[in-house]
Amino acid sequence: MKVKIQGKTKDFRTVWFEKHVVKLIEQRKLPFKFKIFSCRNYKETTQAITDMVVRGAPAIGATAGYATAQAALEFKGTDSDKFAEHMANACEFIKQARPTAVDLKHAVDRVHKSVRGWKKIDLCKEIAVDEAKKIADEYIDVCKKIGEYGNELIKDKDKILTHCNAGALATVDYGTALAPMRFAHSNGKRIFVFVDETRPRMQGARLTAWELAQEGIEHAIIADNAVGYYMKKGEIDLCIVGADRIAKNGDVANKIGTYEKAVLAKENNIPFYVAAPLTTFDLELESGEEIPIEERSEEEVTHMWGKEGKIRVANEKSPAKNPAFDVTSAELITSFITEKGVIKAKDISSL
Amino acid sequence: MKVKIQGKTKDFRTVWFEKHVVKLIEQRKLPFKFKIFSCRNYKETTQAITDMVVRGAPAIGATAGYATAQAALEFKGTDSDKFAEHMANACEFIKQARPTAVDLKHAVDRVHKSVRGWKKIDLCKEIAVDEAKKIADEYIDVCKKIGEYGNELIKDKDKILTHCNAGALATVDYGTALAPMRFAHSNGKRIFVFVDETRPRMQGARLTAWELAQEGIEHAIIADNAVGYYMKKGEIDLCIVGADRIAKNGDVANKIGTYEKAVLAKENNIPFYVAAPLTTFDLELESGEEIPIEERSEEEVTHMWGKEGKIRVANEKSPAKNPAFDVTSAELITSFITEKGVIKAKDISSL
Repeated sequence: MKVKIQGKTKDFRTVWFEKHVVKLIEQRKLPFKFKIFSCRNYKETTQAITDMVVRGAPAIGATAGYATAQAALEFKGTDSDKFAEHMANACEFIKQARPTAVDLKHAVDRVHKSVRGWKKIDLCKEIAVDEAKKIADEYIDVCKKIGEYGNELIKDKDKILTHCNAGALATVDYGTALAPMRFAHSNGKRIFVFVDETRPRMQGARLTAWELAQEGIEHAIIADNAVGYYMKKGEIDLCIVGADRIAKNGDVANKIGTYEKAVLAKENNIPFYVAAPLTTFDLELESGEEIPIEERSEEEVTHMWGKEGKIRVANEKSPAKNPAFDVTSAELITSFITEKGVIKAKDISSL
Repeated sequence: MKVKIQGKTKDFRTVWFEKHVVKLIEQRKLPFKFKIFSCRNYKETTQAITDMVVRGAPAIGATAGYATAQAALEFKGTDSDKFAEHMANACEFIKQARPTAVDLKHAVDRVHKSVRGWKKIDLCKEIAVDEAKKIADEYIDVCKKIGEYGNELIKDKDKILTHCNAGALATVDYGTALAPMRFAHSNGKRIFVFVDETRPRMQGARLTAWELAQEGIEHAIIADNAVGYYMKKGEIDLCIVGADRIAKNGDVANKIGTYEKAVLAKENNIPFYVAAPLTTFDLELESGEEIPIEERSEEEVTHMWGKEGKIRVANEKSPAKNPAFDVTSAELITSFITEKGVIKAKDISSL
């Protein structure tokens, strides 16, 4: 993605690997500061996922792939049984970083599988790094494809709602939900994006708005409460969101509030698209009811951080509840935008 | 309402009149500081309404009634024609304070009308003050009735969603939407209130949560985005919200986000009640489409204030849009809780 730093435009990935170190755009500082966060070993990388230095299912996947490669690199010795045990433990450890995103599991398993059966540890280390890099590169290709297919759903002058951040920052580059908008914009379509702020962590107001501003795509931030207002006024032509995990029947786990926007879209006859790579589909789950929902700290609701620091925004003697995701039923989703094309929920089981 | 100050519990109204001065609980400082704001003349009182020292349709109504009385008191001289002109101008001025709440207009017109036709200015001043006090007292009686009727809709152990603040702070005391909860609680019903935070101004997290904490009513603050999640999980039994203006057909203008919650309640088969005094019904409006919607500053979305001050929370180069109200169609509302009982939209025209 393009990032303007001190007047110059540079190209960045959200996550990359440099001399055994995982480098991440530090998303907890954005949009106020652009910093790179370095993770020197797999435990630091896992912690960075848990702490949300990086977030978004595909970005978590790519990062977890690199973490698994780091785990291989960190092994000392030549005993292949011990290496296998070390890798199994490390993979379990990395998978615990976040419970909802399925890309994490996919990436860890894939790098893990790539080294299985090889006796030479040095070769294993090389293979693991190659496999992790391949995962990251593939995400980029996949997001480009999603952008191309999604672009076909967007008309000139369309007004698009997106929720949370399913942009370059949530993937390795381009994004899932934002990829079609990038492609539409670079194809000369005059789009306008309604960015709902996405409480409690404000990924819309902070990350999506930041990305769109970098790209020069016209947009406005609105409160999550104002989505229905603009839909009812006829000012939103379509919705595109990302996903953290999609069940076999098409139920989608995504950032808390996604379900609300989908219900509102249905009420107002507005198409609601979910953009996601095939790695986000979890065919082992029959329906969304089986998807674990992460509860995060009350403080994300009672406090807010911003450019000048952190402040308390809610009454001091009141508890808060903070589910991080919700599940949107398949029947609320018009289509899925994947790297294999735009598909319906009924087509998922044949993927 | 009960307010705990330095260990002692005192009783307060949201607005009252003391030696020609309008006294208001300063709602922009709550829940972090409890302060009384004094308005020495009708222009200061009008400004306090515009600046949202006081908010909520009935509280605005009572305050505007006192402002009109202040306008009468401020007149110097004995010329009744000049007094009439002064009052007409002052009333126009006060009515411009906020565009959406109809109680404001009702209260100003009522005090204005009470002094019309009288020749003696001193008598007019007395009448105006009496009328304004009567309006405030009547709101209390009305809210008590709403509390009694609404209480009948609440069962033991019910979990209730409310949006924004339609509590004592939004009226003169007791509240509209919160009155049934107060009555249910004091009748020994073990209720639980989901308080959505109500971005952008956070009246839920700040004011409703503060009121419920003062009363010892069990509750939790949730992000506006989490309402659908709890509804779908079957954890919300009913919704009660207030209203800023209700059209003849039952369309309701209320705080931005109300429409979203009503659509979600319908999707999940949860009763959605609007609690409002008859003064909030505007029978001159055929439908909600005629209700003017106030657009407020972008800063309410891009910045947040809290206990420790104000901070920027959104990307700096992104514009924001901030409609303060939305309109919920009559068909999304189960019933209206009024001082005359629980009524259906079709009954409004006979009020």
